[in-house]
Amino acid sequence: MADPRFFTKSGSYTLRALAEQVDAEMQNVSDVDMIINDVTTLDSAGEDQISFLDNPKYIPALEKTNAGAVVIAPRNASHAPTGVALLVSPDPYRAFAKICALFYPGAMMPKHVLGTPGMIDAMAAIHPTAEIGEGVTVEAGAAIGANAVIGANSVITANAVIGAGVVIGSDNYIGPHASVTHALVGDRVILHAGVRVGNDGYGFAMSPQGHLKIPQLGRVIIHNDVEIGANSTIDRGAIGDTIIGEGTKIDNLVQIAHNVTLGCHCIIVAQVGISGSTKLGNFVSMGGQSATTGHITIGAGSQIAARGAAMRDVPPGSTYGGAPAKPMRQWLKELVIVERLAKKDDDKKGKKD
Amino acid sequence: MADPRFFTKSGSYTLRALAEQVDAEMQNVSDVDMIINDVTTLDSAGEDQISFLDNPKYIPALEKTNAGAVVIAPRNASHAPTGVALLVSPDPYRAFAKICALFYPGAMMPKHVLGTPGMIDAMAAIHPTAEIGEGVTVEAGAAIGANAVIGANSVITANAVIGAGVVIGSDNYIGPHASVTHALVGDRVILHAGVRVGNDGYGFAMSPQGHLKIPQLGRVIIHNDVEIGANSTIDRGAIGDTIIGEGTKIDNLVQIAHNVTLGCHCIIVAQVGISGSTKLGNFVSMGGQSATTGHITIGAGSQIAARGAAMRDVPPGSTYGGAPAKPMRQWLKELVIVERLAKKDDDKKGKKD
Amino acid sequence: MADPRFFTKSGSYTLRALAEQVDAEMQNVSDVDMIINDVTTLDSAGEDQISFLDNPKYIPALEKTNAGAVVIAPRNASHAPTGVALLVSPDPYRAFAKICALFYPGAMMPKHVLGTPGMIDAMAAIHPTAEIGEGVTVEAGAAIGANAVIGANSVITANAVIGAGVVIGSDNYIGPHASVTHALVGDRVILHAGVRVGNDGYGFAMSPQGHLKIPQLGRVIIHNDVEIGANSTIDRGAIGDTIIGEGTKIDNLVQIAHNVTLGCHCIIVAQVGISGSTKLGNFVSMGGQSATTGHITIGAGSQIAARGAAMRDVPPGSTYGGAPAKPMRQWLKELVIVERLAKKDDDKKGKKD
Repeated sequence: MADPRFFTKSGSYTLRALAEQVDAEMQNVSDVDMIINDVTTLDSAGEDQISFLDNPKYIPALEKTNAGAVVIAPRNASHAPTGVALLVSPDPYRAFAKICALFYPGAMMPKHVLGTPGMIDAMAAIHPTAEIGEGVTVEAGAAIGANAVIGANSVITANAVIGAGVVIGSDNYIGPHASVTHALVGDRVILHAGVRVGNDGYGFAMSPQGHLKIPQLGRVIIHNDVEIGANSTIDRGAIGDTIIGEGTKIDNLVQIAHNVTLGCHCIIVAQVGISGSTKLGNFVSMGGQSATTGHITIGAGSQIAARGAAMRDVPPGSTYGGAPAKPMRQWLKELVIVERLAKKDDDKKGKKD
Repeated sequence: MADPRFFTKSGSYTLRALAEQVDAEMQNVSDVDMIINDVTTLDSAGEDQISFLDNPKYIPALEKTNAGAVVIAPRNASHAPTGVALLVSPDPYRAFAKICALFYPGAMMPKHVLGTPGMIDAMAAIHPTAEIGEGVTVEAGAAIGANAVIGANSVITANAVIGAGVVIGSDNYIGPHASVTHALVGDRVILHAGVRVGNDGYGFAMSPQGHLKIPQLGRVIIHNDVEIGANSTIDRGAIGDTIIGEGTKIDNLVQIAHNVTLGCHCIIVAQVGISGSTKLGNFVSMGGQSATTGHITIGAGSQIAARGAAMRDVPPGSTYGGAPAKPMRQWLKELVIVERLAKKDDDKKGKKD
Repeated sequence: MADPRFFTKSGSYTLRALAEQVDAEMQNVSDVDMIINDVTTLDSAGEDQISFLDNPKYIPALEKTNAGAVVIAPRNASHAPTGVALLVSPDPYRAFAKICALFYPGAMMPKHVLGTPGMIDAMAAIHPTAEIGEGVTVEAGAAIGANAVIGANSVITANAVIGAGVVIGSDNYIGPHASVTHALVGDRVILHAGVRVGNDGYGFAMSPQGHLKIPQLGRVIIHNDVEIGANSTIDRGAIGDTIIGEGTKIDNLVQIAHNVTLGCHCIIVAQVGISGSTKLGNFVSMGGQSATTGHITIGAGSQIAARGAAMRDVPPGSTYGGAPAKPMRQWLKELVIVERLAKKDDDKKGKKD
């Protein structure tokens, strides 16, 4: 199903093998040794393919699927057509992810852009003092500065730029046109195309005579297993560092200002903006286009809804929404109150619509 | 008027010739053969130049213009100074666009960045297995991967990256530092500088033990006549594709998540964010910084106002605003109600301002 | 304190020398000739280092600091521990910025990315007709088009692209992957990584038959001492120019549409969007994620709060917030009124939380 121009499939599996790999219970299964050849969507699956249901919005697609097997949660299993084998799992999305990774292990960590992994291209510009680890790929047009260090098996793709002195750990993927300066990067980090790491933070002493630039003397520290989406920007600290905690996943076009600290395993959706010196605890999640002001703390495990704007500290474990952000229940209440008032006013005027 | 360092003017035209080309009616014209030498603004135009009025905000500029001729709608014609020839058209903006294209045909589809169209630069990195069509330009620093296909007369500008296996149609313009991977691109497509096509969608199976990456096995399909603005990001599908319909125009810094489908001729203004698996019908328009949540449908012909945030399906032909987005009339009503309440409260306290 | 891999410290200074340089008054000083070796944060400072206090949020850190000296405002001086020498200044942030610049003069204007300032790299692609001034640095992978002009001592870093005909003044820094086309740029301008200058503005004559591209025939004019953050986009004018006034500082991921005029010394924080033909006076400041509609004027000295959305002209010297933006006091009042109504409704139902 995945276009072979872009992805390489790695074998077929029996249903039993898949069930064991993801610790799922088999139901409606007539032949535990049936061969599954690929993963795909409910809509397009055929009888030798496996798909999944997570979001209940797609139950109508499930009801019409021709898939040979479906990964599904216990509560939704009754919606599956008879004749479809089920792998029942309390977390079908995760289980399906693991199955996808079995079929397409290369898609878990990209290894090249131009099609030639494992080579140092002659058209790359590598400073003689840079240290290049074993098994490193450097594609055409990539530039690596003086005294930079690239750890084993990392991939520096076409036209990426690694500035002088930067340290890149092992098994990283640095996408096309990503630039990394003034930074120390851990292992198994993915920076997608156009990511900007280490630019000057936005710091000026303002005055009616014009604004004086504050030298930005810190770094960016990116811990292991971080992934950062295309064209996101992570500025370096003014004094002290900007820090991205282990396992944190950042989507596209996100702005992380100087001296921000993100905890471990945060989820930062597209177009979020986090202002200077703000700290997020572990497992914070911020919805699309949400934001925080500077110098505040978002407690561990908190969630800021899409478009929310945190202006003050948020206690750990909270769910906030709105701008300025407030506890979710309060925000929703306010939305309802305003809607009700507008309707009442309409009714009074006898203008219903 | 246009700076000759950047634009090449192509001839002069009689007023009559212009009127015929754009199907406009001439009014206030003493000499239909008067020569028009250039296009420009109302403010700066001289007597051998043509300008236009579309937005009525600029009627004061019209009243003072020294332009030889002005393209204008019937309803605004009476505001023009006597002595200014008029090309009266029901759609003066479109008519003026056509006139601009007559004077500067090269500006309709850029042909180079560095000044050397029609050449394959020796400093480009083209994989030996890539297929390069006739008349293709590849500028310095561009990289084209294994088995990629570039259609006739397309322009791959300086430092752009076309990944392995990508198919680019004919007559395309790929701007500097644009990167295209895992994608099939139609004809006459414009990708401006820094556009990111085909990066991994943002998909993780989250858990308290950390987030498991979902392999992103789909593609990006871009149909004919699409234009995408600088630094916008179009992620590839998870399973299945992300699709941009024919003629759709996307502005700068827009985020299109995995598995989104945009219909034909959509208008997506700067900094919009469209979440995963959402579908827009044909001719949908989304104002600046607006957004949608995932897995919803915005019906054909609908408009989401700037900063609107659609959280549920929007019926075809609707105009929505606000966050969460609701029918425009209802949103405006709510704004008025709140404003009125605040004023009333102020009045009660005797504090007027 | 600053990582020597990325920054070069320039000497030590006596406290007296620093006080004189920044015009501060010394207090609590036992030895005016004490040697200060570096700048750092209150948290991490040792006795030969200087730090500062500006935001009162950090008074607790001040109270525990081991810094040898602190730059501080008169009103906060009493919070400093005894034994810490004080440099008292009415604007401690500005004074500290000057001290940072004394220790790290190279951080005021970056001079390279790859570590080899002052060289024209053999792997740069410079068109033979381009004029390269004295002392210019061009790093590997940079491309400079036909008839472009690069002023003295400017730095074109790795993989940056300067289009045909572009004029870059002297002492500029063009970051990695920045692209500049159709533009005239002044002196001492900083464009950070991935900045996009001069792409086509977003202009289409829309119709049910599809949207007709309006040729974009203007330029971008960037005046002296402008700084533009990573991945921001500045489109060129349609007819006429997009103009960025002297000393204006733009943060990351900002969108400036065609024909916008920014006055001098404006402050444009991350992810702001300014729509076409809007004009900002001098010293306007726009908070993060704020926006304006097109064809309006934001008067000199006005402030739009973070996330504000100006839909109409804003008078000079105003402070506006909200979406649509309104005078700050009115917006805050409306927020309070809605909050109060929701609370009252809750109380009525006896459901307090």
